[in-house]
Amino acid sequence: MTTETLTQLEQHELFIRRHIGPDSAQQQEMLNFVGAESLEDLTQQIVPESIRLNRDLAVGSACGEAEGMAYIREIADKNKVFKSYIGMGYYGTEVPSVIQRNVLENPGWYTAYTPYQPEIAQGRLEAILNFQQVSMDLTGLDLASASLLDEATAAAEAMALAKRVSKAKKANIFFVADDVFPQTLDVVKTRAECFGFEIVVGPASEAVNYELFGALFQYTNRFGEITDFTELFTELKAKKAVVSVAADIMSLVMLKSPGSMGADVVFGSAQRFGVPMGLGGPHAAFFVTRDAHKRSLPGRIIGVSQDTRGNRALRMAMQTREQHIRREKANSNICTAQVLLANMASFYAVYHGPQGLKIIAERIHRLTDILASGLTAKGVELVNGTWFDTLSLKATDSEAITARAVAAGINLRIDSDGVLGVSLAETTLREDIAELFDVILGEGHGLDVAALDAEIIKAGSSSIPAQLVRTDAILTHPTFNSYHSETEMMRYIKRLENKDLALNHSMISLGSCTMKLNAATEMMPISWPEFGNMHPFCPLDQSEGYTDLIEELSTWLVDITGYDAMCMQANSGASGEYAGLLAIRNYHISRGDAHRNVCLIPQSAHGTNPASAQMAGMKIVVTACDKAGNVDMEDLKAKAAEVAENLSCIMITYPSTHGVYEETVSEICEVIHQHGGQVYLDGANMNAQVGLTTPGSIGADVSHLNLHKTFAIPHGGGGPGMGPIGVKAHLAPFVAGHVVVKHGRESDNNGAVSAAPYGSASILPITWMYIKLLGHQGLRQSTQVALLNANYVMKKLSEHYPVLYTGRNERVAHECIIDLRPLKESSGVTEMDIAKRLNDYGFHAPTMSFPVAGTLMIEPTESESKVELDRFIEAMISIRGEASRVESGEWPADNNPLHNAPHTLADIMDPEFDSRPYSREVAVFPTAAVKLNKFWPTVNRIDDVFGDRNLFCACVPMSEYE
Amino acid sequence: MTTETLTQLEQHELFIRRHIGPDSAQQQEMLNFVGAESLEDLTQQIVPESIRLNRDLAVGSACGEAEGMAYIREIADKNKVFKSYIGMGYYGTEVPSVIQRNVLENPGWYTAYTPYQPEIAQGRLEAILNFQQVSMDLTGLDLASASLLDEATAAAEAMALAKRVSKAKKANIFFVADDVFPQTLDVVKTRAECFGFEIVVGPASEAVNYELFGALFQYTNRFGEITDFTELFTELKAKKAVVSVAADIMSLVMLKSPGSMGADVVFGSAQRFGVPMGLGGPHAAFFVTRDAHKRSLPGRIIGVSQDTRGNRALRMAMQTREQHIRREKANSNICTAQVLLANMASFYAVYHGPQGLKIIAERIHRLTDILASGLTAKGVELVNGTWFDTLSLKATDSEAITARAVAAGINLRIDSDGVLGVSLAETTLREDIAELFDVILGEGHGLDVAALDAEIIKAGSSSIPAQLVRTDAILTHPTFNSYHSETEMMRYIKRLENKDLALNHSMISLGSCTMKLNAATEMMPISWPEFGNMHPFCPLDQSEGYTDLIEELSTWLVDITGYDAMCMQANSGASGEYAGLLAIRNYHISRGDAHRNVCLIPQSAHGTNPASAQMAGMKIVVTACDKAGNVDMEDLKAKAAEVAENLSCIMITYPSTHGVYEETVSEICEVIHQHGGQVYLDGANMNAQVGLTTPGSIGADVSHLNLHKTFAIPHGGGGPGMGPIGVKAHLAPFVAGHVVVKHGRESDNNGAVSAAPYGSASILPITWMYIKLLGHQGLRQSTQVALLNANYVMKKLSEHYPVLYTGRNERVAHECIIDLRPLKESSGVTEMDIAKRLNDYGFHAPTMSFPVAGTLMIEPTESESKVELDRFIEAMISIRGEASRVESGEWPADNNPLHNAPHTLADIMDPEFDSRPYSREVAVFPTAAVKLNKFWPTVNRIDDVFGDRNLFCACVPMSEYE
Repeated sequence: MTTETLTQLEQHELFIRRHIGPDSAQQQEMLNFVGAESLEDLTQQIVPESIRLNRDLAVGSACGEAEGMAYIREIADKNKVFKSYIGMGYYGTEVPSVIQRNVLENPGWYTAYTPYQPEIAQGRLEAILNFQQVSMDLTGLDLASASLLDEATAAAEAMALAKRVSKAKKANIFFVADDVFPQTLDVVKTRAECFGFEIVVGPASEAVNYELFGALFQYTNRFGEITDFTELFTELKAKKAVVSVAADIMSLVMLKSPGSMGADVVFGSAQRFGVPMGLGGPHAAFFVTRDAHKRSLPGRIIGVSQDTRGNRALRMAMQTREQHIRREKANSNICTAQVLLANMASFYAVYHGPQGLKIIAERIHRLTDILASGLTAKGVELVNGTWFDTLSLKATDSEAITARAVAAGINLRIDSDGVLGVSLAETTLREDIAELFDVILGEGHGLDVAALDAEIIKAGSSSIPAQLVRTDAILTHPTFNSYHSETEMMRYIKRLENKDLALNHSMISLGSCTMKLNAATEMMPISWPEFGNMHPFCPLDQSEGYTDLIEELSTWLVDITGYDAMCMQANSGASGEYAGLLAIRNYHISRGDAHRNVCLIPQSAHGTNPASAQMAGMKIVVTACDKAGNVDMEDLKAKAAEVAENLSCIMITYPSTHGVYEETVSEICEVIHQHGGQVYLDGANMNAQVGLTTPGSIGADVSHLNLHKTFAIPHGGGGPGMGPIGVKAHLAPFVAGHVVVKHGRESDNNGAVSAAPYGSASILPITWMYIKLLGHQGLRQSTQVALLNANYVMKKLSEHYPVLYTGRNERVAHECIIDLRPLKESSGVTEMDIAKRLNDYGFHAPTMSFPVAGTLMIEPTESESKVELDRFIEAMISIRGEASRVESGEWPADNNPLHNAPHTLADIMDPEFDSRPYSREVAVFPTAAVKLNKFWPTVNRIDDVFGDRNLFCACVPMSEYE
Repeated sequence: MTTETLTQLEQHELFIRRHIGPDSAQQQEMLNFVGAESLEDLTQQIVPESIRLNRDLAVGSACGEAEGMAYIREIADKNKVFKSYIGMGYYGTEVPSVIQRNVLENPGWYTAYTPYQPEIAQGRLEAILNFQQVSMDLTGLDLASASLLDEATAAAEAMALAKRVSKAKKANIFFVADDVFPQTLDVVKTRAECFGFEIVVGPASEAVNYELFGALFQYTNRFGEITDFTELFTELKAKKAVVSVAADIMSLVMLKSPGSMGADVVFGSAQRFGVPMGLGGPHAAFFVTRDAHKRSLPGRIIGVSQDTRGNRALRMAMQTREQHIRREKANSNICTAQVLLANMASFYAVYHGPQGLKIIAERIHRLTDILASGLTAKGVELVNGTWFDTLSLKATDSEAITARAVAAGINLRIDSDGVLGVSLAETTLREDIAELFDVILGEGHGLDVAALDAEIIKAGSSSIPAQLVRTDAILTHPTFNSYHSETEMMRYIKRLENKDLALNHSMISLGSCTMKLNAATEMMPISWPEFGNMHPFCPLDQSEGYTDLIEELSTWLVDITGYDAMCMQANSGASGEYAGLLAIRNYHISRGDAHRNVCLIPQSAHGTNPASAQMAGMKIVVTACDKAGNVDMEDLKAKAAEVAENLSCIMITYPSTHGVYEETVSEICEVIHQHGGQVYLDGANMNAQVGLTTPGSIGADVSHLNLHKTFAIPHGGGGPGMGPIGVKAHLAPFVAGHVVVKHGRESDNNGAVSAAPYGSASILPITWMYIKLLGHQGLRQSTQVALLNANYVMKKLSEHYPVLYTGRNERVAHECIIDLRPLKESSGVTEMDIAKRLNDYGFHAPTMSFPVAGTLMIEPTESESKVELDRFIEAMISIRGEASRVESGEWPADNNPLHNAPHTLADIMDPEFDSRPYSREVAVFPTAAVKLNKFWPTVNRIDDVFGDRNLFCACVPMSEYE
C-alpha cells in the first residue's frame, strides 16, 4: 500500500503535469542530454544571477481543474446579466449553436496561428475572405481588410489612412461629427494628439467649413438618426478631404451603403453578427475602402492567388505594407487581427444568408417602429426623426424610468443631458417591447404590440428615408446561399477546418509566438452567458464578477511582472506597445518635458516597435547590435548621451529577439534612466521570464504582455489578442482611461486606446484560469521547461545546423535561431523551401527570417512533449539530409523535394510525378512518423507576387471551383 | 420595405429550416421530379388514408433556438445538485475537460454510427479496443466485450451466459448473493422469470448449498465489504457453476482481480471513469469472461484482423453471434452498445494512465480510511469491517443525521433498516470529510483530517485485507502510458477522430437507422452540471427539473404515438422491445392467461424481434411475407387461428422493414385482437409516422421508440440509445418498475429492465429540445421531407438499379431498398464491393443485406439537403457505370475499382498501382465532387474471417506499428 500522504494524493498540482509536455522522467532525460542536473541547475546556467527572482510568485498555489472551475463559476455568478438596450456599438446577438460548438469551442479553429503558411491554412483563409466579402457587400466599397481590433481603433486608422492618401497635403484638420459614439471620438483624439493632427468636433454639416484632410461621420448616428450624406460627401471630396463613415453592420443590411454615397472608408464592428458582447470584446471590426488606397489599407488582407499548379489559392496579400516596409515611418502598427471573431461573423452571414439577415434586420427595425409608434402616441418626444434600431427620448422623468428599468433587469442608455436611449437587437422579442412600454410609460399605458404592428403595416414605415433604403443585392455569392441547414453548415465548417493545421495536429514552434497549450478548462468559461452577455457600459454593480476577476488578475500580473499597476485595455501586443509609449509620453509632458520625444530602438526590434513609437509621436533613433546579436553597449551609450536632453525612452525586448538573456540588460536600464529616459520592455518574450525574473526588477518602467502568447489565450487563427500593460507607479497616472466608464482611478480621464474600458474582457477568464490552475509552482516550472525544451532542440539541431546566437554557457533562452544562410549558399535551398518542406512532414514552419533574414526561429514552449520535439528534430535532420542531396548535385536544384514542397495529393496523383528524381514516398511520407499522422497541404506553393500583381480580395467565382 | 408581419419576422419556425435539409424551393423541385404537387399531396399518395392522422400534434408550436435554450435552462435550474455519497453504482467523477470538449461535445465523435464499415472507423475502433483492454486488465480475465448497457443488465447477461456455458445442464438455479445492489437483483429477477430460472438469494457462503448453473456475487458488496472469494469460487466451480462477479471499476485499480480468484465473468459500470452520473445514464458497462466462452459473450467485440495489404486493422469480431444466428433461440438481444461512453471511459484511462488511476483510487480509499477512523474513534459502529470507498454505519440517530445532511446539501445512502451508507469518490475533497464528520457526529467532534491521515500513514491501513491488495501491473500497454499531457491527449483524440467518417463529413443513409441531424442546440444542455451531476437515487424533490422534463416529454410522446402512457426506462431499442413484451406477458398473466405465450413474427422482422420474444419467454411462430414484401395475410390469419388459444402477440414493424406502408396493417391488428393477442409495433421506422399517423391509432398496443433514431439523440459511434415504450392504457400497469425509486405509479413495484429508473435520463434533454424546437409543424414536415427525400433518391436510382419494393402509387416510405442481386449475377460485383466503393466516394454505405440479402437499404432522412442527395445519387450512378465495365469484361472481375475498394493512400503510393487496369484518379477521385471533400479510408478491405479465426481483442503490440 502507498505511504504517500493525503496531500500528495490530492494532486492539486496535476494540471501542471497536463500543461507541461515532458513528464519528470523525460525532463531528466533531456536535462542529461543538455548537460544540466536539474531544472534549477539549468535555470542558473541560463538566467543571469543579477536578475534572478528569488521568491515564489504571489499568485497562490496550483489547484485542480475542478477546483478552478468552481472558483470561476462563483466569479461568473457575481455578474448580473441584464437585458441591455444601451447600444453604442454593442448589441445582443444570437450566436448560432453550430458556430459556437464547431468554431468558438473547437481547437481546430481556436488554436490555429495567423495564416502565414497559407498552404496549410486554406480553410480559415476562405472564412476570412468571406468576411471581406460581407464587408464589401454591406459597405458598398471594394477593398476590405480582415480585420481590425474594434470600431474606435478602426476610426483612428481611418484618420491615419486619410492623412496618407488625402491630396490636401497641407491640411492638418480631421473633422469628427459630434454625433459619433463617445468612445470612438475618444480613441481618435488620443491617436490624433500624437500625430499632431487637429481634431475639430462639430455638427456634420459644418465639416465643409474647414480645411481638412479627412472627416468622420457615423451612420446611423449615436442618437439613432439616419442621415443622407451624399451631398455633403460630394462637397468634402471636392475639397480633397477623405471621407470616413462608422457604420452599423446590421443596419447596412437595410440601408443604402455609405460607399454609394461617396464615402472613401467605411468601418464598424461586426459584433452583432453572432459574437457575444463580452463586456466589450473581442470582436472584429470591418474596414473597407477603395481599391485605389490598397497600399494604405491598415491590417491584413486576404487575396486570391495561384499555386504552382495554377490552382486558385488564398493567402495574405501585400504583406509588405506599413510597419514592415515603413518601420519608423509607419503610422499604423496593426498586427494581431480578430480572426476567430471575424470568422464567427462571416459564418453567421453564411448561415443566415442574405434573406436571413434581411429578416433579422427587418425584425429589429419593425420592433423599433412599434416602440416609436407607441411612445409617440403617448406623447414621448423623440430626439431622432429617423431610425434603424435606436430611439433617443427626451424623458421628463428619467429617474423614475431608470428606476423601473433597473427593477425590471433592463439597461437603457442614459446620456448626460437626461436623454434616454433604447437600442434594439436580434435578441429583442415582442414581449420586450411591451416591457419597455411598461418601463418608459409606467403600467396602464394600454398599448398593444400586435395592433401597433398592424397599423405600421397598413400605413407603411417612414422611419428610414425612402432614398436611404437599400435597393442593391448583397451576398449574392453562392457561399452565402448554400449552407442554411445546420447539417450543411456543420459540414462546411468541418471541410474548412480540415484544411488547416492547428495545435490539435502538431507543434507550432513559431519563435516569438509562444504557441502553448490552450487548455479546455481554461476555455470553457468564455462560453458562459455570465461572461458573454455583458454590455461594456453596464453599471459597475452588474459586472462585479468581471471586476473581481480583472482585479485579481491584475494583482497577479503585477506580481509576475514586478510592476506596480496594470492597465487592461489594449486589444493586442501592438496596441499595448502604443499604450505603454503613450504613458511615457504623457509622463514626460506632465513634468514639463514635452520635448523628450526620442525613442531608441535596437536594430533587432520587432517591426511593431518603431511603428508604435512613430504612432506615439516619437522620433526613432536606431542603435546597433554586436556580432553576438546583443545590444551594442558602446553605441547605445553614445546615442543615449547624444540625444540625452530629448530622450524619451528605449524599447528593448527581453530575453532579446535573438533568444538570449542579455547580461547587460540592467545596465541598459541604468544608462537610459541616467539620461532621464524611460525603459519600455517588450513583453513578447515574457514566457522566458515568468517566475524566473521580472521586467520590473530588471529595471524597466513599462511593458505590454501578450496574454495570447505567454498566458494561454489561444491565437484563434490570427487573433484575438490582449495586450495589457504593466507600469511602475510613476507611470500609473498616465495609462489609458475611458470616456464612458469610470473606475475611480487617477487615469480615468485619460484618453482611451480601445473602444471598451477593458478591451477584450471576455477572454480574460482564460488567463485567470491559466494562472489559477498552474499557481506559482506551475508558472515557474513552465518557464523552466520552456528553457529546457528550447535548449534540447537547439543542442540536437546544432549538430546539423549552425545556431546563430547563444548566451551564457552556450545556452539559449526559450527559443533558438538556426542559420540557414550557409546551406542556402552551398545548395541553393532556401529558408522558404525548408519551411514548406516542414509542411510535408506535418509541421508548421517556425518563424522565418525574423529577426534575421535567412533563419528559422524555433520556440517549442513548455507544452510540447519530448516525443513531439523528437519528431520535429527528426524532421529537421531528415530535411538537412535532403538538402545534402541537393548540395551534392544528386538532385537538381530546381527539382527536388525541398524546392517542390509542399506536396499535395494532386502531386502524387499526377502521372507525371514519375519523372521526378524522387519517389512519391519520399515526397509525402519521408519518415515513418509522418505515416502515422499525415497532414495534407491542400494547395501547392503559392505565388505571392502573382497575387499581389493581380490583387483579388473577394470570394472566388464558383466557376473556378469546377 | 417589407410588408411581412412581425409574426413572420419573428421566425419562430427558423429551426425547422435548420433541421430539414432541402429548402422550400428545393423541395418543390424534388416534388416536381417525383410527381407530386406538394408535401401534402405526396403524403396522401403514400400514406393509406385509413390510418392518416388528421390533426396537429399537441406538442406546441415551433420555437427559436434561443427560446428553447431559455426554457430548458429553467428546467435545469429546478434540479438541485447535492453532493452525493449514495454510491450504489453511481459516483462523482471528474470528466477531463479535454475529453468533454473533444469527444462528448464533438460531432466528429458523437454523430458517428456503429463501426459496421470498419475501413472508415479505425479511430473509434481503437478507442473501443482500449476499453476492452482496460476491462481485461482490471478484471483479470481475457476476453471483453464493448460494451453493455448498465451493470444490472450486464448481470442478467452474465446469468444468461452461465446458463449457456455451464456444464451443470440440469441445474435451473441461479444464486444471487444477498449483498448485491438491489437494482442488480431486480433486473436479474425480471430476466430470470421469463427464462424460467429459479433465483435463490442468500448470504454468499450459502451458494454451495444449491445445485446451480451459476452464481452472482458483488465485489465490494453493497455495504462496502471486500470479500476473498477464492475458496468459494473453487467449490462452486467444482460443482460446474459459472461464477459471475459484479465489480466496481475504481476499486479494481487497488484490489486483487476477481479473475485471479477464479471468476468466470466479471462485469460492472465504467461510469466513474469520467462519465457523469446523469440521473443514471448513459454509462458503459464492461463485461469480461474467458476466451473459452467467446461464442457466448454478449454484445459487441472489437478484434484485430488484417486488411488486403496485410496491415493490422480493427473491426467488430464474430458479428454472427446470438440474435443473428440464433434468432428465436437467442437468449440475448443486445444490439446498441454504449460506445460514446465506453470511449470516454477508455480515454479517461488513457489520460490518467496506471499511475494516475492509482493515485485517484488511493485518494478515495485514504479519505474513506480517514472517515472510518474518525467515526469509529467517536464510537460509531460500522457494518463493514473492510472497505474500498464505502462505509455502512449503524446509526442510532439516523433521522437527525439525515436532517443535517439535507441542510448541508448532502445525500447519504439510507437503507430500510436504518443503516446509513457513505460512498466516497474522485470528487471528494478533504473538506468534505470534515463536513461529513459534522453531519454524522454533529459539530464539536474535534476530529482533524490531517491528524487522522498522519495516524493512518504511521499505523498502516488494514481496511483492504492484505491478500486482496492488487500486486499485478495494469495498463502496461504504451497507449496508457503516452498521453498524459493535455496537448498529447488532444492530438491523440484528434488523430483517431480523423480516421472516422461521421455526419459532419457526409450523409450516412443507413436504412432503419435514421441518421438525422443532432443539432448543437439540442446537445448543449447535456453538458450542464444540473443534468450531469444528479444521482439516480437522490430524493425526488431534488430532481424536479428532470421530473418535469420527463413528464412533459412523455406527454408529447403519448400524443405522437397515440398511446396512453410511456415508460422511460429501457436503454436501447432492443431493451425497449423486451420491456414491451414483458408488459404483454404480464398483462396476460394478470388475466389468468399465462398460457398465452406464442409470438407471431413475420419473416422480415429485425433480428432483435425474435431474440427479444425469446427473452420474454415466448415461443416464436414465423409468418410468411408475399412477393411484394408485405405480410402474407392468409398465412397470418391461418397461423393466428392455429395458435389462437395461446396467442400472446404479434411483432410487426411499420412502415415495414421493406420500406412501405402496408395497407393491411389495421387488418393485422384486428386479426390479432380477435384471437386475444396483443400487437407489438416496432418503432424503428417511427420517422415515417410522426405527425402522419400513430401506432396507437393503427391499432397497436405497445411500441418502443428509438429516441436515438427518430428523436435526434446522436448515435455516438454505436450508442448510447434510449428505448422508451408507449402502451395502451390496459398495459400501463405492466411496464417496468424500480426497486429503489418509487414514483407513485401502479407499475412501481414491477420488475425493472434497467439499473436506473429512467434509464439514460441525461440524454432525454436532447429529445425534449428536438420536439420543443420543431413543434408540431416541424415534426410533421420532417416526416414529410423524409418521405420526399427517400422517394427522390428512389426515383433517381430506379433508372440504374431495380428497386425491390414499393407501396401504393409506386412510392416508398422513408427508405428504399435497391436490389443488387441481378448485378451480382451479371457482373460478379457484390453488395460488399459497392458498399466499400462508396467509401471511396466519401460515403458511408447504406444498410447492407437487411432485411433482404444482396440489397442496400437507403434512408436519407429529412436532414439531408438536395445537394447532398444529388452527390450520393451521382456516386451510385457512377458506381453502376463502373460495374458495367466489369460486366462487359473491360475490367477483370478480380481487379477493378469495386473489387479493390476501398482505396487508401497506401494504394496510390504503391508503384505497383500502375499495373492496375484503372488509374489512380479513377480509384480515389472518381468524380469532381470527391475532390472537393475527400475522405480517406485508413485501411484496405478488412479480412473478417482471418480476424475471427485468429481472435485477438486487446491492444496491438507497439511493434506492429513500426
